[in-house]
Amino acid sequence: MSGKVWLAVDGSLARVTIEHPGKHNAMSRAMWRELRAVFEQIQRDDALTAVVVGGQQHFCAGGDISEYAAFRFKEASLRDFHENDVWGGLGAMLACDVPIVARIDGNCMGAGVEIASCCDIRIASDRARFGAPIAKLGFPMAPREAALVMRVVGELTAREMLLSAAVLDAGEMKQRGFLNQVVGGDLLESAVHACLDRMRTLAPRAARLNKQAFRALALADIEHAATDLIAFAYHYADSAEHREGVTAFTEKRPPRFAP
Amino acid sequence: MSGKVWLAVDGSLARVTIEHPGKHNAMSRAMWRELRAVFEQIQRDDALTAVVVGGQQHFCAGGDISEYAAFRFKEASLRDFHENDVWGGLGAMLACDVPIVARIDGNCMGAGVEIASCCDIRIASDRARFGAPIAKLGFPMAPREAALVMRVVGELTAREMLLSAAVLDAGEMKQRGFLNQVVGGDLLESAVHACLDRMRTLAPRAARLNKQAFRALALADIEHAATDLIAFAYHYADSAEHREGVTAFTEKRPPRFAP
Amino acid sequence: MSGKVWLAVDGSLARVTIEHPGKHNAMSRAMWRELRAVFEQIQRDDALTAVVVGGQQHFCAGGDISEYAAFRFKEASLRDFHENDVWGGLGAMLACDVPIVARIDGNCMGAGVEIASCCDIRIASDRARFGAPIAKLGFPMAPREAALVMRVVGELTAREMLLSAAVLDAGEMKQRGFLNQVVGGDLLESAVHACLDRMRTLAPRAARLNKQAFRALALADIEHAATDLIAFAYHYADSAEHREGVTAFTEKRPPRFAP
Repeated sequence: MSGKVWLAVDGSLARVTIEHPGKHNAMSRAMWRELRAVFEQIQRDDALTAVVVGGQQHFCAGGDISEYAAFRFKEASLRDFHENDVWGGLGAMLACDVPIVARIDGNCMGAGVEIASCCDIRIASDRARFGAPIAKLGFPMAPREAALVMRVVGELTAREMLLSAAVLDAGEMKQRGFLNQVVGGDLLESAVHACLDRMRTLAPRAARLNKQAFRALALADIEHAATDLIAFAYHYADSAEHREGVTAFTEKRPPRFAP
Repeated sequence: MSGKVWLAVDGSLARVTIEHPGKHNAMSRAMWRELRAVFEQIQRDDALTAVVVGGQQHFCAGGDISEYAAFRFKEASLRDFHENDVWGGLGAMLACDVPIVARIDGNCMGAGVEIASCCDIRIASDRARFGAPIAKLGFPMAPREAALVMRVVGELTAREMLLSAAVLDAGEMKQRGFLNQVVGGDLLESAVHACLDRMRTLAPRAARLNKQAFRALALADIEHAATDLIAFAYHYADSAEHREGVTAFTEKRPPRFAP
Repeated sequence: MSGKVWLAVDGSLARVTIEHPGKHNAMSRAMWRELRAVFEQIQRDDALTAVVVGGQQHFCAGGDISEYAAFRFKEASLRDFHENDVWGGLGAMLACDVPIVARIDGNCMGAGVEIASCCDIRIASDRARFGAPIAKLGFPMAPREAALVMRVVGELTAREMLLSAAVLDAGEMKQRGFLNQVVGGDLLESAVHACLDRMRTLAPRAARLNKQAFRALALADIEHAATDLIAFAYHYADSAEHREGVTAFTEKRPPRFAP
């Protein structure tokens, strides 16, 4: 059976499922392209307020190594794979303005760590394991992926994963600042739902503006980015949700935000 | 009663108190302007060696929402509030060369997290709670404030606070690298004093030079900042405190630094 | 007895020893120059796959203060010391493409923290203590050193160490993200060996490429650095170790990488 990245939309919630039976949800080239298409569709859908990304039993165990001999040993096709297929998918996730929650169980390795690094909130089961042991396969991490992992996983852990092939458990990754929450395996679904329920009541346009600001600030010299952002940062002044949020607080009632 | 930001100077120590009775020390527009004036005064006072910032029972619960309807729904007045009032206060704290200790009890939310992020050392009681649930009020964080919080609170926690309105306790914020120390509520004052006592004996000009370097390095491309800093980094060579510190060590006696 | 930085090569492993008897391995000017020479030699040796840096009982207690009166009180000689001697040594470590493991016991202060910050993986005994109490000596940290420490130790801890002369134990430094692992003192050697054994089997050229990428990404605006790196990032496509790693995985056998 070949793998697949699924999108299911339920009201204002999008659920993205990474599925590759028998391969711990490893990403094939086709799946990277599906990941891109799925997140481009999510980005176009103004009715969405949250996305959850996960897989059955495992989050994602890495790349689908059975495909590697076909393209990895020529520079042009290797570059095409990393810059277009992989970064196509990860870049679409990073460009997505809708908040993304990672639901992480089992193996989260290589490509799994990269996909999780594109999420805004990461909740893991205590069975989850993390690493990027690609030095066992004789190759380094591609530059954009290394920049992403170094920023989100942290330099200490990125160096340990890549230079010593370390595999770390969920508790350790929580302590190192990669995970927001770690729960027992049978509590994972309810912990993710509690977070999504909290997000559902929040102002959806404010979330998109916050994500745009985080993205600009993460990528660029902070002083320049802040100056650029200020040009449009306050356009929301007269928006319905801004009025509703402040007014509801004043009237001591819960706000009602349209997605 | 309206709020107030107080400054009290006791020898080489400045104590800044955020006070807004009945509002958990929420910041009004006037208080942001007072915060700026207070820190501009501190910066001009060469006799100071440390500042401690705090409030009674609570650190600061956010902005004073009762004022919001008067200015938040027009872009020009909203921008004026964030860029001049809020950033006026936070910018004066960030521009202050005297080391600042945050003494954090109770609520530390929104504006409170921003003010604490401008301090050099953060000591909290185990009753302290942290968050920035402004998405409940229908608006995003302003760019300079988002840049500050993202850098100091960390991207993981900044995203969780802004995108899911999470409120985190002091233990969690210690684990996530925002707090230097968490103590039982009745030990907060003595923990802050122990830190201030340690700081009182240190070279005050060295502290100012270190803060200037941290500021330059945090804001700019690190390689350029280091190159710029080197132009004046070693002017202190012949200073009295440099001689006193090294000489006292050699003579096995405590150094005596003039503030 | 004067101090010395030793290099011993054993097959593909380099062992660097910081030794200054009676001074807890404090760095003299001569030792900084030896540190540079040692790492320049390591960098030229294509047969090496890992370096371990450490000292007897202590890692390194700082600079050799007994030399300070001879050069610290003139700006030109002070600058020469920091920019040429100290940064000569630290810069050579940072420029080294071979993975470096710090083996940290006892005092790791000032220069010790800086040397450890140039390592890729840091394993400490629970007896190790960390700090940079140079404000007791009346001087600030030099800019390049402050940039290094702020990035690797983290801004929270860098400010606490420099502005309040705090000394932190190994458990606290693990929690703050500076250490990969803390073990009981008599398990330090075996923990370091376990890490080196894991590294020995990994692809050595991939490790060098990963270190080059981390270095470029840490120093520069990330987007520009990634773009520059892409120019040569995929030259390894046809390399022997890339083929061997992927092929060995496919053939379900351990890879055999030549150093």
